[in-house]
Amino acid sequence: MSHIVIIGGGFGGLYAVRTLKGAPVQVTLIDRRNFHLFQPLLYQVATGWLSPADIASPLRAVLKRQRNVQVLLAEAIDIDGTNRRVLLKDGEVHYDTLIVATGARHHYFGHPQWETFAPSLKTIEDATEIRRRILFAFEAAEREADPERVRSWLTFVIVGGGPTGVELAGTLGELTKDTLRHDFRHINPAESHILLVEGTDRILPTYPAELSAKAAAALARLGVSVRIGATVTDIQPDSVILRSNEQSEKIATRTVVWAAGVQASPLGRILATATGVELDRAGRVMVAPDLSIPGHPGIFVIGDLAHCRNQQGQPLPGIAPVAIQQGHYVAELIQQRLRGQTPPLFHYRDRGSMAIVGRAEAVADIGGRRFSGLLAWLAWLFIHLIHLVEFENRILVFTQWAWNYFTRNRSARLITGEPPPST
Amino acid sequence: MSHIVIIGGGFGGLYAVRTLKGAPVQVTLIDRRNFHLFQPLLYQVATGWLSPADIASPLRAVLKRQRNVQVLLAEAIDIDGTNRRVLLKDGEVHYDTLIVATGARHHYFGHPQWETFAPSLKTIEDATEIRRRILFAFEAAEREADPERVRSWLTFVIVGGGPTGVELAGTLGELTKDTLRHDFRHINPAESHILLVEGTDRILPTYPAELSAKAAAALARLGVSVRIGATVTDIQPDSVILRSNEQSEKIATRTVVWAAGVQASPLGRILATATGVELDRAGRVMVAPDLSIPGHPGIFVIGDLAHCRNQQGQPLPGIAPVAIQQGHYVAELIQQRLRGQTPPLFHYRDRGSMAIVGRAEAVADIGGRRFSGLLAWLAWLFIHLIHLVEFENRILVFTQWAWNYFTRNRSARLITGEPPPST
Repeated sequence: MSHIVIIGGGFGGLYAVRTLKGAPVQVTLIDRRNFHLFQPLLYQVATGWLSPADIASPLRAVLKRQRNVQVLLAEAIDIDGTNRRVLLKDGEVHYDTLIVATGARHHYFGHPQWETFAPSLKTIEDATEIRRRILFAFEAAEREADPERVRSWLTFVIVGGGPTGVELAGTLGELTKDTLRHDFRHINPAESHILLVEGTDRILPTYPAELSAKAAAALARLGVSVRIGATVTDIQPDSVILRSNEQSEKIATRTVVWAAGVQASPLGRILATATGVELDRAGRVMVAPDLSIPGHPGIFVIGDLAHCRNQQGQPLPGIAPVAIQQGHYVAELIQQRLRGQTPPLFHYRDRGSMAIVGRAEAVADIGGRRFSGLLAWLAWLFIHLIHLVEFENRILVFTQWAWNYFTRNRSARLITGEPPPST
Repeated sequence: MSHIVIIGGGFGGLYAVRTLKGAPVQVTLIDRRNFHLFQPLLYQVATGWLSPADIASPLRAVLKRQRNVQVLLAEAIDIDGTNRRVLLKDGEVHYDTLIVATGARHHYFGHPQWETFAPSLKTIEDATEIRRRILFAFEAAEREADPERVRSWLTFVIVGGGPTGVELAGTLGELTKDTLRHDFRHINPAESHILLVEGTDRILPTYPAELSAKAAAALARLGVSVRIGATVTDIQPDSVILRSNEQSEKIATRTVVWAAGVQASPLGRILATATGVELDRAGRVMVAPDLSIPGHPGIFVIGDLAHCRNQQGQPLPGIAPVAIQQGHYVAELIQQRLRGQTPPLFHYRDRGSMAIVGRAEAVADIGGRRFSGLLAWLAWLFIHLIHLVEFENRILVFTQWAWNYFTRNRSARLITGEPPPST
């Protein structure tokens, strides 16, 4: 029986696996983590709205009734295209067809040392670490006497005005204005300064300009200062240097979150070495129109790791809908090939884009219709719930959302992760 | 206004704070963590049933409407009884009355090196680390070819047959028999070996003997082997040495959990140095019948840190009901003193004891009535919910419990905490 190996249990890999349900093939899913992560909601963990388990589903639980799949908790370190092997840190797996869906990581534009002071939001551990830093900043401010230092503890800088940056800044605005309102005795969290820094001339630069403006207005209502046309030139433990209009400005802050750059997973480079395939500047694999690697019809690359263009020649963005459609497409293609059929090329159906700004506040562009406010927020909720519907914890997440919405509560605001000091 | 400083936001400290609501005093609660932890449910986090945030409530959220309280996220490192000061790692706080409620830690009976191989269950970080080890053991077994090694990965040793050990062993039995049933392709989790090791002649040694027998029978049904009269003489990364009847036995295992010994918080020793008060062998403070330190009527010690005897001269156990009643008592006493009244001595009302063994299976001794099975389980659920009722997330926890109960699901079984390897 044909053996299909899929590396990566994100949106692309998981949807490929599920599409192969019942197919006369054997599937092996390899992932370093034992869970699928619903990345679009990571910022809600970082701000104490949801718990890690609310947005992470154990891969074995999701796939336990799909008998043609085995899950391996393992790390792929090399690919041998000649002998059709994936080399693992501890072992190897042979494949007939390989799907690589290992996604992207954050990228500090040549300044890897910034990561210590400005973590990114890609993993569960990132989210709980950012949550720890944000919550600790208020605790430190509460105990600080010097007004300058209080101000720096209450200044939060988010670098990058894409959807993640916007969502994080908006939620942080709500946290300071609303959730934490009665929590402190010496500081007023509502006096926090939240800066959202974007290098281009508007936030959400890949969205229609009209929605960028609406999102900026909504952020302003939540007390977020948006700095467009500004780039970060340095990050230190207690400050960030911004440069805009050829002027530099030093912002005193203790909490910086990086939401600016992504870079393809290192498996891209490994594939380039193994197959000679070309990479783009972000390290993504230049795939053929059927998402295979040119000259290697048995190796596919999907999701954030793939550089794929739409009919207009534009590269597709690194978002969940693209990965889901690609995973589905490749799994169908493999079955069509097995049946001796000629599959069509990949065609991305753009169903629109949306970003949440705050409680009952979002912007959306669906099928060319643009809307914002409560309606967009409900659409966002609905579409996210549809995707969560795949998973067992959807009812709990919905309960949690509804509960938090009506009570304005964020019960998951725990400072954890650092081993507690020994007293 | 009289300033009452409380160190420790566990059951004792938090109930003292809440009893002082509306009193004409100023209260400062000092804790190293920003949340109150519902410790009796920690084992449910360790086995993937609940998330950390389900059993941890941010102290500021719990107390935000109690205006006479301020919360300090800080670590107390010394007490100056002469000048009535608590010295913090970074600062100091003056008090008129001090309540020390810093609880207990685990204790390895002179073998601190065992902690690396056999973590205890005291903090949220302990629970997620134990969860990681338990879940990873099944993953490693799934990928292991050698039957000996598979067996050692599927052998779990829990040291200590008190309530925590019994609850953990029972829940682990359910996890292997039930939750993970369809998750693996190469191993059968139901073939796991779960050993519960107890040094005395029965598990739950502080409970009536009848309940110990019922709990042992329930554990046997869940596949747990109970080893009574056995002590651990060595722990290595891949084995445990048990000694019973003057014979030693080596158990090959990769997962050991320590639920055996507790020792009072180091603040006990600090109090002994500062005030000359006597400590018992576990480092607990020998308090006066009104829970103050003899000769220091303005310093109280409550909860697991206090050595306090009942009318029969038996020391009270280190359990939540004792701490809660003591916190309540001291807070009332302080108010009576301020009103010029003479307070009564502390009198513990023993409302019984219970332990959960598995799904719909528990043992209870309430007011001299002993029962087990579903009824005891419902009593356990009810009493725990009553206490959770103090906190905002009770509805969510109840939903989660009900959901998990009916679906036999454990959605929180995530392997987290270790930074993911870099691919």
